Amino acid sequence: VVGPGDDCAVLRPSAGRLLVATTDALVEGVHFDLSLSSARDAGHKALAVNLSDLAAAGARPRWFLCALGVPRAPDLRGAAVFATARSLGEGMAALARESGVALVGGNVAGAERWSLTLTALGEASAPLSRRGARPGDALVLAGQVGAAALGLRLLRGSKRRGPDLLARALRAVPASTRAALRAQLRPDALVSAGLAAAPIASASIDLSDGLLADLGHLLHASRCGAELDLERLPRSAAVRAAEAALADAGEHSYALSLSGGEDYSLLFAVRPARERALLAALRRSGTSARTVGRCVRGRSIALRERGRPVPLPRQAGWDHLSRA
Amino acid sequence: VVGPGDDCAVLRPSAGRLLVATTDALVEGVHFDLSLSSARDAGHKALAVNLSDLAAAGARPRWFLCALGVPRAPDLRGAAVFATARSLGEGMAALARESGVALVGGNVAGAERWSLTLTALGEASAPLSRRGARPGDALVLAGQVGAAALGLRLLRGSKRRGPDLLARALRAVPASTRAALRAQLRPDALVSAGLAAAPIASASIDLSDGLLADLGHLLHASRCGAELDLERLPRSAAVRAAEAALADAGEHSYALSLSGGEDYSLLFAVRPARERALLAALRRSGTSARTVGRCVRGRSIALRERGRPVPLPRQAGWDHLSRA
Repeated sequence: VVGPGDDCAVLRPSAGRLLVATTDALVEGVHFDLSLSSARDAGHKALAVNLSDLAAAGARPRWFLCALGVPRAPDLRGAAVFATARSLGEGMAALARESGVALVGGNVAGAERWSLTLTALGEASAPLSRRGARPGDALVLAGQVGAAALGLRLLRGSKRRGPDLLARALRAVPASTRAALRAQLRPDALVSAGLAAAPIASASIDLSDGLLADLGHLLHASRCGAELDLERLPRSAAVRAAEAALADAGEHSYALSLSGGEDYSLLFAVRPARERALLAALRRSGTSARTVGRCVRGRSIALRERGRPVPLPRQAGWDHLSRA
Repeated sequence: VVGPGDDCAVLRPSAGRLLVATTDALVEGVHFDLSLSSARDAGHKALAVNLSDLAAAGARPRWFLCALGVPRAPDLRGAAVFATARSLGEGMAALARESGVALVGGNVAGAERWSLTLTALGEASAPLSRRGARPGDALVLAGQVGAAALGLRLLRGSKRRGPDLLARALRAVPASTRAALRAQLRPDALVSAGLAAAPIASASIDLSDGLLADLGHLLHASRCGAELDLERLPRSAAVRAAEAALADAGEHSYALSLSGGEDYSLLFAVRPARERALLAALRRSGTSARTVGRCVRGRSIALRERGRPVPLPRQAGWDHLSRA
């Protein structure tokens, strides 16, 4: 009704639907690095991570507000700042058009670093949350795991032992290496998958902190435990090759897919009787999906590979405050 | 329906009402200074500035989301960071309770500086915006101007000539000096005034950047000009005394009230036939209000003092990107 330009946006919610709201920030030097990614990529990602939260709720994204932190560092000239701000905006705008979501408000503040703090608003009749899973539910994963974490390690280049090792290990799989870079720089939010799953699943979460950490959040809210069948995790050829190389170097053999983070895949719990309906609905929505485990009594997570127990990695997932 | 703890909040909008959304950020070193104000004050202010935007729209505030930027500087110990975060939260929580608004979501991200980026959501049947004023409308100001800017100058202490000068000028008015400090540190959002005005006024804006700058925004959106009667501006005794001292030192004689910013008062335009109804409704809501000028044809702002023209100040208002 009233969009950007006024201090407030005026929005007309759909009758009888619930409003779903989420906020997420991307800070330069913490969540993105303008020496590794373009400003356009950062803009895309800032919106994508918010849309992913709406997708997990099974909500249709409608509007977003963007608060931009603009650095006032003396070495940044006006024209360079303006060009970066424009590219951030273009990255958001392209994804916004594609996703049918409208920018309705914003704010610009001086800051130390570039930052994008977005609030996304969507609508749903019966939104999913982390609560609602129970022992016996199947765990269904839509999308892939590990690719974004692999992309980040490759981007960080040769500063550490990791990337050289990975570059060597990946010589045979260039196409899925490119996919890993794309997963890191321009993640997709699985909005259609969330909409398809909303009437069927019992609980859901999007994978931002890593499969284990986010599964832990879902289990904590739903008060149950889980068993994961590692051989069923949807990993690209590059992620498999990289994890094999990392395992040789002493890391967990599913280091990227369990703890890498930034997958923006969706993890659903579903009653056993509806498991096939959920898998079919997700595939009809255009998203690959498979059952990767099951909820059990208790509160712990057990890992298995072809039926044999596998220890948990030492570090479960991504801590937003400790990442270098 | 689902509040903090999940990635998304699920909210039930009231049937038949419009949703009003706004986002505003406070960044340490730009918008607040933890050596001048407490973290509790900063938390209060971060919510108040967002509620003020809703108040200007005449919306009833219902929910807010808070994205917190937490510094990762090496000299900040865990316990100190936690204590500051808690105080910021307490400042927000106290005002939230008072205003009937619920925290429904949040995000924490590592950052260079403390920052609070809030998105506030309210509801209104017929929200006001900057658009809708026309020549002949009266300009009605609810609340006061100049006090917050005076408070800031006093807080900044003796680094510049200004504050010493002001401290001397204000020796006779200690009570309204305290009010100025409070206006700077813990501004009130005039929510009741906005609700009272919504069915009567033709346009509105809250005064965050300064009366002249924000009046300019309203006039730009409404495509008209204005005449302001400076002697009618609602200024405290301390603001009057300080402006007199500043005028002696070469500043504009209404420097604080025209360009100071952070007043969080509300400026309304209203058709002449409804001017008295608006003033009465605002006073019934518990807010002082008076007519301070009128909309005219054209696009410019003319200042008058007892009918005689007064030049505009050189700097109209507060530029969010240039404040030291």
